[in-house]
Amino acid sequence: MRQSPAAVVAAVDVGGTRIKASLVDRSYTVVTQTTVATPANIREDIGQVVTSTVRSLLADAPAASLAGVGVVVPGLVDEAGGIGRLSVNLGWRDLPIRDAVAQGVDVPVVLGHDVRAGLLAESRLGAARGHANVLFMPLGTGIAGALMLDGVVIAADGWAGELGHVVIDPDGPVCPCGQRGCLEVLGSASAVERAYAAATGQSASAEEVAHRTEAGDPVAGEVWNAAVAALGRGIVATVTLTGVDRVVVGGGLAQSGEVLLAPLRADVMARLTFQRPPQIVPAALGDRAGSLGAACLVWDAL
Amino acid sequence: MRQSPAAVVAAVDVGGTRIKASLVDRSYTVVTQTTVATPANIREDIGQVVTSTVRSLLADAPAASLAGVGVVVPGLVDEAGGIGRLSVNLGWRDLPIRDAVAQGVDVPVVLGHDVRAGLLAESRLGAARGHANVLFMPLGTGIAGALMLDGVVIAADGWAGELGHVVIDPDGPVCPCGQRGCLEVLGSASAVERAYAAATGQSASAEEVAHRTEAGDPVAGEVWNAAVAALGRGIVATVTLTGVDRVVVGGGLAQSGEVLLAPLRADVMARLTFQRPPQIVPAALGDRAGSLGAACLVWDAL
Repeated sequence: MRQSPAAVVAAVDVGGTRIKASLVDRSYTVVTQTTVATPANIREDIGQVVTSTVRSLLADAPAASLAGVGVVVPGLVDEAGGIGRLSVNLGWRDLPIRDAVAQGVDVPVVLGHDVRAGLLAESRLGAARGHANVLFMPLGTGIAGALMLDGVVIAADGWAGELGHVVIDPDGPVCPCGQRGCLEVLGSASAVERAYAAATGQSASAEEVAHRTEAGDPVAGEVWNAAVAALGRGIVATVTLTGVDRVVVGGGLAQSGEVLLAPLRADVMARLTFQRPPQIVPAALGDRAGSLGAACLVWDAL
Repeated sequence: MRQSPAAVVAAVDVGGTRIKASLVDRSYTVVTQTTVATPANIREDIGQVVTSTVRSLLADAPAASLAGVGVVVPGLVDEAGGIGRLSVNLGWRDLPIRDAVAQGVDVPVVLGHDVRAGLLAESRLGAARGHANVLFMPLGTGIAGALMLDGVVIAADGWAGELGHVVIDPDGPVCPCGQRGCLEVLGSASAVERAYAAATGQSASAEEVAHRTEAGDPVAGEVWNAAVAALGRGIVATVTLTGVDRVVVGGGLAQSGEVLLAPLRADVMARLTFQRPPQIVPAALGDRAGSLGAACLVWDAL
């Protein structure tokens, strides 16, 4: 006997270098998934790129019946209007992404923001389950942020969560954004790599600096601790201002695990005086948080 | 012909030195109001103090019919539980304020937080009307804060909004909270007074320092500008992290008006790079924001 078609949504996370896409059923099980390189002409072709990715997923899952499409993108996103307001990396401004995708499919399409969607997924399926006041902090080449407060992921018209550009040291290095001493130029993977190269004349990845720190290399340790201290200050400022009590650390730098998290917890605890101490935990969903969040958004909308 | 009784709520703002109370009708018109000194034994007698204040208001308004009581207090407040979790100024910890007041009245009682209630009132009746992403920043002896994000006043279990204790200068003076360089020790009225006394050996109120700044006194100007710069940094950090686009400045220091607001706007604009510029405006409801907010809370609950 043939099974009746299982309803799925297509969840597509359009990033600067890769597009991660999956079919996700009502219980958030990933039926099938794929990763493709982001084409250079994504700005012009986003509707076609997303719909052809969805079609190739559906070809792999003949028993699936498509109920909707969720797309998440970086930058500044107008979720209600379905518009990518600005992405420096992907080169668009005021791009009507939802409508472009909707032209290629005959199901509802929802547009979201990659990091806020990632937080939604972590809160529903991952490391923030059962928590109402959460900072989601993906650490990589840059530093992103998203806030859940009183149980709601905050958008503020797309402007919320720019933790990477909170000024930590007003006399610090100039950030590409134009401010000085942003968290991103002090605590990101790139910042660790730059500081290590400046101190030693050698190039090493942030992961390698983490390994050398663990192995007892004093110069690597100093560079690593400076990044941890910047992250600690950013977390404490966020806790003080917003009252979050759980910090979910994601992104490439979080792959370092306890080499990062143990000193980060100690740094934050040492800075706090009267504030509620946050739990600092690794993200659970890895680089699939964005696409799972896209699935949450579209299932919620259906 | 005698009028039928008009429904009112009693709105009571219990502060460190004064209790401000009013009867407020459904259209937020203040029917009558009073201010009394906060008694020393407020912790033991809060139920009796509030109910006797409400009775004296009702004696002044014989045509009014009491529908509910809203009480707002400072510190850490568990609004759902009706409990004052902690107030250093008023000397309580885990005080069941709502139940204490309810014993003396036969109408529903609602407990709220003074600053968050003030923001609710400013958003409904005052300087934040029509805005969904707002920082309310009362500046006085201390610096308080409350956030409205995506149209909701954020509580985070009572921990949200401690803007006065965001670290602005990690090498700054020690704050009573134990951190160094909190906004409160750099940008409050007390901070202005301390800095002016340190620079001149003279004591002058923050208001007087503002007057001398306006009159061109260079030392006063330097002290004033340092406080403005600290406030500017606090506002920019809040804008960056939360996406607020309206800052409502209240409290005693806001009485200085444009002597404060004009340089503060210029300072913030000079610091912003990519962020959405906030409007910085004076509070509209003055020291009645808290009690009007208490009225909003209880009318909403009825």
